[in-house]
Amino acid sequence: MKLKVKILKFLAGKPVCMIHKDTAKEMSVHVSDRVSISRDHKKIISAVDIAEGIVKPHEIAVSEEIIAHLNLKQGNLVEVEITSRPHSIHLIKKKLLGKLLTKEEMEEIVNDIANNSLTEIEIAFFISAVYNTGFTTKETKNFIEAMIHNSNIMTLRGKIVDKHCIGGVAGNRTTPIVVSICAAAGLTMPKNSSRAITSAAGTADVIETLAKVDFNIKEVKQIIKKTKACFIWGGGLGFVPVDSKIIKIERMIHVDSSAQMIASILSKKIAVDSEYILIDIPYGPSAKVTKRKGEKLGEKFIEIGKYFNLKIRVVLTNGKEPIGRGIGPVLEMTDVLKVLGREAPPEDLEQKSLMLAGIILEMAGKARKGKGFKLAEKLLYSGQAFNKFKQIIKAQGGKIKPLERGKFSHIIYARNKKKIKHIDNKLLNTLARFAGCPEDRAAGIYLHKKSGESIEKENKIMTIYSSSKDKLDNALKFYNKNKNNLIKFNH
Amino acid sequence: MKLKVKILKFLAGKPVCMIHKDTAKEMSVHVSDRVSISRDHKKIISAVDIAEGIVKPHEIAVSEEIIAHLNLKQGNLVEVEITSRPHSIHLIKKKLLGKLLTKEEMEEIVNDIANNSLTEIEIAFFISAVYNTGFTTKETKNFIEAMIHNSNIMTLRGKIVDKHCIGGVAGNRTTPIVVSICAAAGLTMPKNSSRAITSAAGTADVIETLAKVDFNIKEVKQIIKKTKACFIWGGGLGFVPVDSKIIKIERMIHVDSSAQMIASILSKKIAVDSEYILIDIPYGPSAKVTKRKGEKLGEKFIEIGKYFNLKIRVVLTNGKEPIGRGIGPVLEMTDVLKVLGREAPPEDLEQKSLMLAGIILEMAGKARKGKGFKLAEKLLYSGQAFNKFKQIIKAQGGKIKPLERGKFSHIIYARNKKKIKHIDNKLLNTLARFAGCPEDRAAGIYLHKKSGESIEKENKIMTIYSSSKDKLDNALKFYNKNKNNLIKFNH
Repeated sequence: MKLKVKILKFLAGKPVCMIHKDTAKEMSVHVSDRVSISRDHKKIISAVDIAEGIVKPHEIAVSEEIIAHLNLKQGNLVEVEITSRPHSIHLIKKKLLGKLLTKEEMEEIVNDIANNSLTEIEIAFFISAVYNTGFTTKETKNFIEAMIHNSNIMTLRGKIVDKHCIGGVAGNRTTPIVVSICAAAGLTMPKNSSRAITSAAGTADVIETLAKVDFNIKEVKQIIKKTKACFIWGGGLGFVPVDSKIIKIERMIHVDSSAQMIASILSKKIAVDSEYILIDIPYGPSAKVTKRKGEKLGEKFIEIGKYFNLKIRVVLTNGKEPIGRGIGPVLEMTDVLKVLGREAPPEDLEQKSLMLAGIILEMAGKARKGKGFKLAEKLLYSGQAFNKFKQIIKAQGGKIKPLERGKFSHIIYARNKKKIKHIDNKLLNTLARFAGCPEDRAAGIYLHKKSGESIEKENKIMTIYSSSKDKLDNALKFYNKNKNNLIKFNH
Repeated sequence: MKLKVKILKFLAGKPVCMIHKDTAKEMSVHVSDRVSISRDHKKIISAVDIAEGIVKPHEIAVSEEIIAHLNLKQGNLVEVEITSRPHSIHLIKKKLLGKLLTKEEMEEIVNDIANNSLTEIEIAFFISAVYNTGFTTKETKNFIEAMIHNSNIMTLRGKIVDKHCIGGVAGNRTTPIVVSICAAAGLTMPKNSSRAITSAAGTADVIETLAKVDFNIKEVKQIIKKTKACFIWGGGLGFVPVDSKIIKIERMIHVDSSAQMIASILSKKIAVDSEYILIDIPYGPSAKVTKRKGEKLGEKFIEIGKYFNLKIRVVLTNGKEPIGRGIGPVLEMTDVLKVLGREAPPEDLEQKSLMLAGIILEMAGKARKGKGFKLAEKLLYSGQAFNKFKQIIKAQGGKIKPLERGKFSHIIYARNKKKIKHIDNKLLNTLARFAGCPEDRAAGIYLHKKSGESIEKENKIMTIYSSSKDKLDNALKFYNKNKNNLIKFNH
């Protein structure tokens, strides 16, 4: 049925439309049904709200997500049809039962995610099936291939390097530093990051405090041509749109399965044509993995990478505690700028960044075996890395500027003399999220003290920042409930 | 923050509100965040859409679901606050990892479902965790108790009987007949049914073709006082609202785990004070369970029933094929009326109903052991059961009337002489759902021929009905893709 578009300007986070109850009846559409809306050979699947007052019969109000996809204007006519439940629902059920999916079945699910035929709730069932029953190596390979088929691929020339950290360690923002060092050494490093899934901030969230991260492929190519590197948000670019949709839903429950993680990381590397890839796997009691699990995960990365001709190196790093002093987008960028700008750099963040950059320099032949670290140091200490960083930030429409922390804050003081024994990454990340991270860029935590440092009575231990009074209150509630596990002391 | 309600009259299938982008910024709320909306000590949790044109700053437009819950009028002021992610998300993750939930943890999850703190996507993760890793008997018991704590309980006097079929057999609509017979025998039978989850119709959907099924507790008590029985929709009544929410999401992917099923059924029986309960478990290749699984499931029902002092009898029935000739609300009610009204009754439906009613009559002491079937026959053949049915339907605001099938239909003819060997329940149910069941009451399938009946060339085999041309087309596409498995023939 042809319906007339009414522009209401609302964002719903997904395609939603409203049709009048009489039109709904005429079309036999019920609330929460899905319809396809098409115009000019473009189509999108949308959930239906049934309205009375907002739209007239034969009108359709659509969310901004639909307007953007179909390029709609007020009064446009669109073809609206009921869509039946896609067959891939049965395949998701099959996976929920722990059965293996064939190559064709995997493609069907991924295609239906790509073209919006599956709702977010159905995708949630798929994610939890994978979380619960896992993927075999073959399934992971097929899943990556299916995502790549629904992706925008960028081809680049020369030796292309990349790095990726599986995350889970609070404050661990090495990427901007490592990329700046490697690009300063002349390597091409098209760094394509996601936003935070389970942590307080992803690299994309952190870079966004200074520059844009959301570009189209043409723009990205220009940035790389100018600077040899970039810090872009892969999701916004639509490199691997299926991955972006899955991550959006994973974020709701902070689920992040290892099969899903490998697929998500490697698909984005393949999409930007990377060849030499360093995977950083932090392990520890409150990191994402234990040492043994980390080793196994590393093997899987290498095994699946081989299918796609990727040269992968895995490094297991100490993920026992937060790295740097800031947690949250603005606070982490502040740490990064201290390292690059040589102003009271947090030592652990600096050392780790140099180590990672050193390995990449050796992998790509810029330094001989054992000489990578020295070269990285030279590039950092000489200011070449910082210049490179400024160049990239400028190419991405930004500049170095003072960064403001959330206007609401609360300081935690020590009640007596003591020493920190352990800080829990997961609880610290959760605390930062209660404060508003990652959406609230200025929210987060500053650690005045870290493990091993002695603390006198009345010393500041940490400050929690938020742009919202409510969220700060929620964070404090969480802190008070969990403080004994969040930081452990030696008295 | 206090916001002013703007009534827009839209149904979204769940609580959704729209606030102006400037107000969202002021509150640090982002699209898809959740907020609590409260007024007069009542509170509801809602997802947020961000709008520009529809609402002004400091206004809030709310879906009908919110208006009903908070009893809102245009211009009312409501308190709107950001809500942090509930802690129960971590418990859902724990269950996803296959770990056991304690009594307190189960309560926390169920309470958060009850008060809308968990989104539908988060509930989907919980459902799939249960589907995948199951519940222990203890967990099921705790889950039922937590649901009962969040329920409206009805207390009745005397011997209260009930029956329940686990479903999965197309057309198997014995409930209206069994209830009519038992109530005609003087038993109290407060039948509380759900709508279809994976099948073409639930009892509530079928009754709704003639009468209302949606009452408050006071009304239900009056119906039972007048007639000794009722056919009500438990979900609408809000007996066990958590169960209703879960079922709504299960329907999206047609998932129905055994732990979930037992909890769903028994919680509703407890809520209406039933004591003697007959569970009908159809088994067969295309039923929900095999014979062995059915026996195990039956044992679980009895075991969990004991915790709640329920007297449960389980009967395993032949679920190899559809029962009756109609599939879909209107078509199944037509079969029921044929049995009750003694006009060309489908024999299999009649025999099964008499058998089930007979067992209940014996359980509750209305007939001696071995004499229940005879008594049931007497009550049916004498017209007493039909009179009782009419009395209940009248008490529920309905009356016996001609029922119209969907205006679009398609007849499947035999191409040659043959015999039906097997009809697949699952595919038949799916076919009926493609045609629009259960929301489209008039949609469904009429089986002109069933197993064992001989078919001549050009005979009608089945007719598919729908109120929507699009849906009929979708059903036909599905039929053509699956016809060889849907009906198997002996040539």
